[in-house]
Amino acid sequence: MQILQGDAARHALSRNFSEIPVPESVLARNEQLYGERLTPEQVVERILADVKVRGDEALLDWTQKVDGFRPTLKVSDEDIAAAEIDPELHAAIRLAIRRVTDFYQKQPAHGWIDHGPGGALGQLVRPLSRVGVYVPGGLAPLISTLIHTAVPALVAGVPEIIVTTPPNRDGQIHPAIVVAARELGISQVFRVGGAQAIAALAYGTESIPRVDKVAGPGNLFVVIAKKLVFGQVGIESLPGPTETLVIADDSASPRYVAADLLAQAEHLGAEPVLVSTSRQLLTQVQAEIGGQLEALPEPNRSWARDSIQSRMKIVLASDLTEALELSNLYAPEHLCLLTRDPWSLLGGVRRAGGVFVGEASMEALGDYVAGPSHVMPTGGTARFMSPVNVRDFQTIISIVGVNAAELAQIGPAATVLARAEGLEAHARAIESRLSEQD
Amino acid sequence: MQILQGDAARHALSRNFSEIPVPESVLARNEQLYGERLTPEQVVERILADVKVRGDEALLDWTQKVDGFRPTLKVSDEDIAAAEIDPELHAAIRLAIRRVTDFYQKQPAHGWIDHGPGGALGQLVRPLSRVGVYVPGGLAPLISTLIHTAVPALVAGVPEIIVTTPPNRDGQIHPAIVVAARELGISQVFRVGGAQAIAALAYGTESIPRVDKVAGPGNLFVVIAKKLVFGQVGIESLPGPTETLVIADDSASPRYVAADLLAQAEHLGAEPVLVSTSRQLLTQVQAEIGGQLEALPEPNRSWARDSIQSRMKIVLASDLTEALELSNLYAPEHLCLLTRDPWSLLGGVRRAGGVFVGEASMEALGDYVAGPSHVMPTGGTARFMSPVNVRDFQTIISIVGVNAAELAQIGPAATVLARAEGLEAHARAIESRLSEQD
Repeated sequence: MQILQGDAARHALSRNFSEIPVPESVLARNEQLYGERLTPEQVVERILADVKVRGDEALLDWTQKVDGFRPTLKVSDEDIAAAEIDPELHAAIRLAIRRVTDFYQKQPAHGWIDHGPGGALGQLVRPLSRVGVYVPGGLAPLISTLIHTAVPALVAGVPEIIVTTPPNRDGQIHPAIVVAARELGISQVFRVGGAQAIAALAYGTESIPRVDKVAGPGNLFVVIAKKLVFGQVGIESLPGPTETLVIADDSASPRYVAADLLAQAEHLGAEPVLVSTSRQLLTQVQAEIGGQLEALPEPNRSWARDSIQSRMKIVLASDLTEALELSNLYAPEHLCLLTRDPWSLLGGVRRAGGVFVGEASMEALGDYVAGPSHVMPTGGTARFMSPVNVRDFQTIISIVGVNAAELAQIGPAATVLARAEGLEAHARAIESRLSEQD
Repeated sequence: MQILQGDAARHALSRNFSEIPVPESVLARNEQLYGERLTPEQVVERILADVKVRGDEALLDWTQKVDGFRPTLKVSDEDIAAAEIDPELHAAIRLAIRRVTDFYQKQPAHGWIDHGPGGALGQLVRPLSRVGVYVPGGLAPLISTLIHTAVPALVAGVPEIIVTTPPNRDGQIHPAIVVAARELGISQVFRVGGAQAIAALAYGTESIPRVDKVAGPGNLFVVIAKKLVFGQVGIESLPGPTETLVIADDSASPRYVAADLLAQAEHLGAEPVLVSTSRQLLTQVQAEIGGQLEALPEPNRSWARDSIQSRMKIVLASDLTEALELSNLYAPEHLCLLTRDPWSLLGGVRRAGGVFVGEASMEALGDYVAGPSHVMPTGGTARFMSPVNVRDFQTIISIVGVNAAELAQIGPAATVLARAEGLEAHARAIESRLSEQD
């Protein structure tokens, strides 16, 4: 594999426009389903408009069309109470919930009111009233995604959480998802996925209550639907394919670096990036990847091989300062620091979703039980977005409670500004009170 | 005017889908400009695509097409240094900057790192690197919008702020805007408005640097452009027409209530709402509005009359509890509390942009010098959005730095979850370290 350096590395790690790419396979499937090569956006627009008008019936029709069956939408209280899974997995779910809860309980989440001689000013902080959590389906139950999205909302104090997730071919949701919901105290779980689920959360249907904000990752259709409903409902981010950038120096273990890159690579469409100050390490890691890749079972091996061959980038940096500069340019979802003194680099990290410091803190641990949510900004959006956190599930309300004495002090300046902006009635609303103070 | 009560009031204050309405006048003007009745979204898509490819040249061409002239894009350092305005206005600008800065310096904005026996976990809080502030043009210089958008970004620590604002017909920006930028320490001010300005901030051009986030209100085209570029760049909100809900009891002064509703009403397209527990007050306020409206100069009188006649809502609530319930349903941008004991209502406010407590704290004061930003969520988006604040200009970076002992404790559960999700390489990345701990 080509080792990039200097401007070539900078160019390869620049991300100009994180537009959502449309694979040819999606267009071909749309042609098969709809008789036209509709773009995903056109399909999503049809779904949104239909669910808005026809509610549950539209949800079922679109699930029939895309997935081939009509599920019972709501998971019953009896089904939630009865779900059982392997005790070891159950214990792991409990540990993950506890660790993520402990983490977010430390996030500052308070408002303030400051009373002074001029009266009071402040910011109230309020939880959202109702939040929708989308849990992607696919080949395995994404238990951790439910935990890592719902817990920050629960810690924020959101009183009502609605979960939607696509059912399996037998019309059911994996019991591990149901158990996780039960452990979280969530009683509203719906068997529906895709853009139609986002539409249901945004507009409400007969069965599914309309929410204030939709959170959670999903496939291309889900992400487009989130973008299109934004403004009518809140969304926390537009998550795309996952990515990890590892910064390693000559002290790093090639075995660990390779294992971390492969853990990233086994996600479909993932982008592993390795930046090292050691040319020898780059060579050793590539050899390690080869060996570890062969030892992986299918289908993981094929997916990992595709990520490695199609999207992995290997960069030789002149020093750790340049390595950090390249990482900040790339703004990775995950940044792993495998260097002699990883904590010393933290001050230079300006853009990343999460930073994994040292060899005991591999990113795979963060996906499950370390503490912070694994729902992190992808595609360079760490420039302006954060991992899912308590703030995502709060609003701030500004408080203005100045007294008459303060108004007499600052009111005249406000009338000057109001008149400069042509807003005469604003000036008069202030003056109506000022005149009585004299 | 009809007085609404009970279910009729609830219905009138429910906001199902805050879609951006398209006035017929906009379609007619588009037909005149483009020879087709393009929707604003279609026009904006053309502008975005063109600016992405052609940069500055496209900015100038679209300004020529829409506004009829080609401005010099960048305001020179000499122009910024030389701008002069009336000293009283200059002093008012300084007061506003000081008050808004003082307010946001009180907002909690810190990260945390918690070191325990298991290692360290935490959240870094980082300012964005570069922010674009859009200042709408139109009939008057919106000096306060520049201050109320830029100051929270400056307090957050954003090192670089880019201002764009449409020039007047003579190709210039009002000196009060330039003076305000100078007082804020902002040296990059560009004479361009509309969707093309948002495109320039999102993609960058030869003259205008690409930013991480675009903030500030604007007309329909600006808001659509912000929605379309979201994901490639951050945006703080999708602001629509302004609105105020006043809760007043029988202790309120009809003169003040009318003045506050008129201050709201003089904005084009505004929606004033009055909820009172006193039928007598509702009658008195309507009489007051009539008198104060006649005394307003034009064009403010016509705009205010249109808001009053077309969109004002008057509601009789059975008690203050119901008044608050209706207000939370409506989720107003501005909530004014003109009651005997306004502070006692604050605990019941769940959804609002800003709350103006008592008769000395009129909303018009908040537009200029009270402290909190006047850029607040409109159209019911206070359900899930906040006024512009320091958080809008920060990202959070999650930190995972657990040690080997902690990994030995929690790692095995993570491998169980990873395998339940079908992610074998994740489990192996963890186990590669666990095995060495034994």
